[in-house]
Amino acid sequence: MKNTIFAFKNDSPKYKQIYEQFKSFIEQGDILADEQLPPIRHLADSLQVSRNTTLMAYDQLVAEGYIRGEGRKGYFVNELEPLVFQEALKSHSKKQTESAKPVRVDFRAGVVDQTHFPLSIWRRMSNQVLTFQKSFLYGEHFGEMCLREQISEYLLQSRGMKADANAIVIGSSTQQILIYLGLILKDDYPSITVEDPGYDGARNAFQFHHFMLETLPVYETGADFSKLEQMESRLIYVTPSHHSPYGVSMPIQQRQTLIQWANQVQGYIIEDDYDSEFRYTQQPFPALASIDSARVIYLGNFSKSFLPGLRLSYMVLPQPLLKRYKNQFLHFESTTSLLSQLTMAKFMEEGEWNRHIKRMRLVYKRKMQHLVSLLKKQFEQNVSIIGEQSGLYILVKVHTKHSEEQLIQRAYDGGVKVYPTSPYFIKNNTDQPLIKLGFSNLSFGEIQLGVNLLKKAWLL
Amino acid sequence: MKNTIFAFKNDSPKYKQIYEQFKSFIEQGDILADEQLPPIRHLADSLQVSRNTTLMAYDQLVAEGYIRGEGRKGYFVNELEPLVFQEALKSHSKKQTESAKPVRVDFRAGVVDQTHFPLSIWRRMSNQVLTFQKSFLYGEHFGEMCLREQISEYLLQSRGMKADANAIVIGSSTQQILIYLGLILKDDYPSITVEDPGYDGARNAFQFHHFMLETLPVYETGADFSKLEQMESRLIYVTPSHHSPYGVSMPIQQRQTLIQWANQVQGYIIEDDYDSEFRYTQQPFPALASIDSARVIYLGNFSKSFLPGLRLSYMVLPQPLLKRYKNQFLHFESTTSLLSQLTMAKFMEEGEWNRHIKRMRLVYKRKMQHLVSLLKKQFEQNVSIIGEQSGLYILVKVHTKHSEEQLIQRAYDGGVKVYPTSPYFIKNNTDQPLIKLGFSNLSFGEIQLGVNLLKKAWLL
Repeated sequence: MKNTIFAFKNDSPKYKQIYEQFKSFIEQGDILADEQLPPIRHLADSLQVSRNTTLMAYDQLVAEGYIRGEGRKGYFVNELEPLVFQEALKSHSKKQTESAKPVRVDFRAGVVDQTHFPLSIWRRMSNQVLTFQKSFLYGEHFGEMCLREQISEYLLQSRGMKADANAIVIGSSTQQILIYLGLILKDDYPSITVEDPGYDGARNAFQFHHFMLETLPVYETGADFSKLEQMESRLIYVTPSHHSPYGVSMPIQQRQTLIQWANQVQGYIIEDDYDSEFRYTQQPFPALASIDSARVIYLGNFSKSFLPGLRLSYMVLPQPLLKRYKNQFLHFESTTSLLSQLTMAKFMEEGEWNRHIKRMRLVYKRKMQHLVSLLKKQFEQNVSIIGEQSGLYILVKVHTKHSEEQLIQRAYDGGVKVYPTSPYFIKNNTDQPLIKLGFSNLSFGEIQLGVNLLKKAWLL
Repeated sequence: MKNTIFAFKNDSPKYKQIYEQFKSFIEQGDILADEQLPPIRHLADSLQVSRNTTLMAYDQLVAEGYIRGEGRKGYFVNELEPLVFQEALKSHSKKQTESAKPVRVDFRAGVVDQTHFPLSIWRRMSNQVLTFQKSFLYGEHFGEMCLREQISEYLLQSRGMKADANAIVIGSSTQQILIYLGLILKDDYPSITVEDPGYDGARNAFQFHHFMLETLPVYETGADFSKLEQMESRLIYVTPSHHSPYGVSMPIQQRQTLIQWANQVQGYIIEDDYDSEFRYTQQPFPALASIDSARVIYLGNFSKSFLPGLRLSYMVLPQPLLKRYKNQFLHFESTTSLLSQLTMAKFMEEGEWNRHIKRMRLVYKRKMQHLVSLLKKQFEQNVSIIGEQSGLYILVKVHTKHSEEQLIQRAYDGGVKVYPTSPYFIKNNTDQPLIKLGFSNLSFGEIQLGVNLLKKAWLL
């Protein structure tokens, strides 16, 4: 480390200037990973500031992940991944001022890996799209045909589905699509069966139209179809490829049972295929709609597989519903950015989408394996891990007397954010708390730190 | 018409059941176009309901375009499938390649000037936004705070409104916002008054929730408020700054009347301020909500003023509604691209938005003047021009015996696309055809060519 003299300015607090100086040393590689920082006392003396000032600077650096404290040994520089730190600052420093406790690792799901995002390709294509004349118009009401054609091809290749581009409707989110769809379903189908536990956001969208809800119990081992025949509903909302949140995949027998049922009651299956791209142990299973799509409303989106902030989703409608939907929404403008649609169409057309999915499957697989092996090592028999074959999160069933809330609070006090699963449950509750850990945008180092902190926090 | 016996059910109002029965007769072709409906008195007697009940059912059918009143002659069924006609217009680009006739000039509204778009600035900012860490997350449910703060400031400066950033909700289109908003209004406010003529897209959004529609007559000279007191609705949807499509602006007396009325009936005014930025003769009028926002739901968007394909709109809610809205939609993801929101926030923050509006006001003003002077020169007394003080289109009232459809067809045969205004009208029809001409993305040369071709086509 360079021996640099700090020339303090008057326009900002001293601790902040120290923090900023070290931050830039680390970012520029002047201090390397695992190098030790000067002890607080020494630094305070040499800069002629209080120890508290130095401590505040170091705390900020810890909070933002630049350095780590290792107890009496002192402070060491963390390994950085080039893209992460650029803007990390802004959002973190805001959060920190709000809460007293710094979050060192956030096991949040619903975020994607930033370091492997195809930034320059996406930029190039979206810049190109801005020169198209059609970018200055209102778009097509049901989505741009070029994107629908690409999705149609993707569904055939990757999900085994024959979906005509005309039968695809582009929307901005699963919930928005369900709200619009609900309008043409609710009169003929006043009630719907949903998974318990299951995706709460879908339930909210059904409640928008005051659908009556019935529940299909789902367990770690799969759904229980024994009462399907007795249901009043002729609509069912399911996540067959990767159950949310248990992660189980529906076997073919159950899929066939569902399709038979839908034909028998003249109803519809809403298949939410929200993250089927990321299956690590086998090839992704074909969609339920690939068996027989006549009674399946298929939902897909780009939030998990590409970028949630794009707000780009779609559905595939069976013919009779498609006709009704198009009549009903003939005069409704699209809710989805035309620019995003055109850029995504280009991205898919040039093969970048397939490359991206392949690359990310590997990236996420490694992160998943890393997380699972660390959890097993640290917690041994004290937790069970659920859903490690696919997706961007796992569930940890914690064998403890503590409640979900207590576990989350303890983790938070120890500097780790973990997430509840209780919002997914209606009445089919678990005996032991289930904690949700997302890992998609964490580095290997952060995953390791997070598990270590959890171990300390939970004392298991 | 079949002689059908109504078996009234108890679960919905009688007028609604009558309305629904007639609607289905018309849709199924049981009553044909131009057939007369039973007079109100007869129907009331034969169904043993009050005349008022029958009248309400007929009014709703009129409002939705199923039937028309012809004064003392009674009520007659309208020709259905206006869909085909409008669809043909909307998907014009496809038809164009199919049909032999090339469109040389397209007077389409709903498109923005491409040559003055701040392409490099927008590109730079959207590229920058892609490096932010928050761009890889799901966004805030009610919109990004940075954008809401910028909008709040803009509304204060340009529209004279004090709107707290927290009271602003970001959405993707006026229609999507009205659909979401409708959910928290429809139970307390089962009916709504809309302008006639008025923006058809808003009416479609209200019909999503089956609001009953009453109409406020609007003429070239302004709205007729004489029957406001007698309206049943306690909700009204208006375009005070720039009436769609007549272009008139509501004088302060009418604005005050509206606000008094809303206070008196404890209702709400939905103010759609869709293109107030472009006023050429004076400074833009302050928003209605600037007088008293307690009973005004304000809607704004970036479609006319910036780029329709962004799909970026917003509303400002009065406190009691805001609370209900946020409770209702707490668990709903945003429908709007996070990237677009962050880019627009930056664009506004750096003053580019104000510069853009100033520049575009001048650009559009010149185009407007050019179009108007050419039309006056070519058509002299044969047309009247309506709405030249503001906006991105004008209406041309053509003094002719030809119908709107004939004028559009003739223009099309002569290589010019012009647009109908009939979709805006409910029952307050004009005596002579009104043609809509948008000019925003046409060059001076194209405008000139377009007017010349129109002159030849219309032979006036």
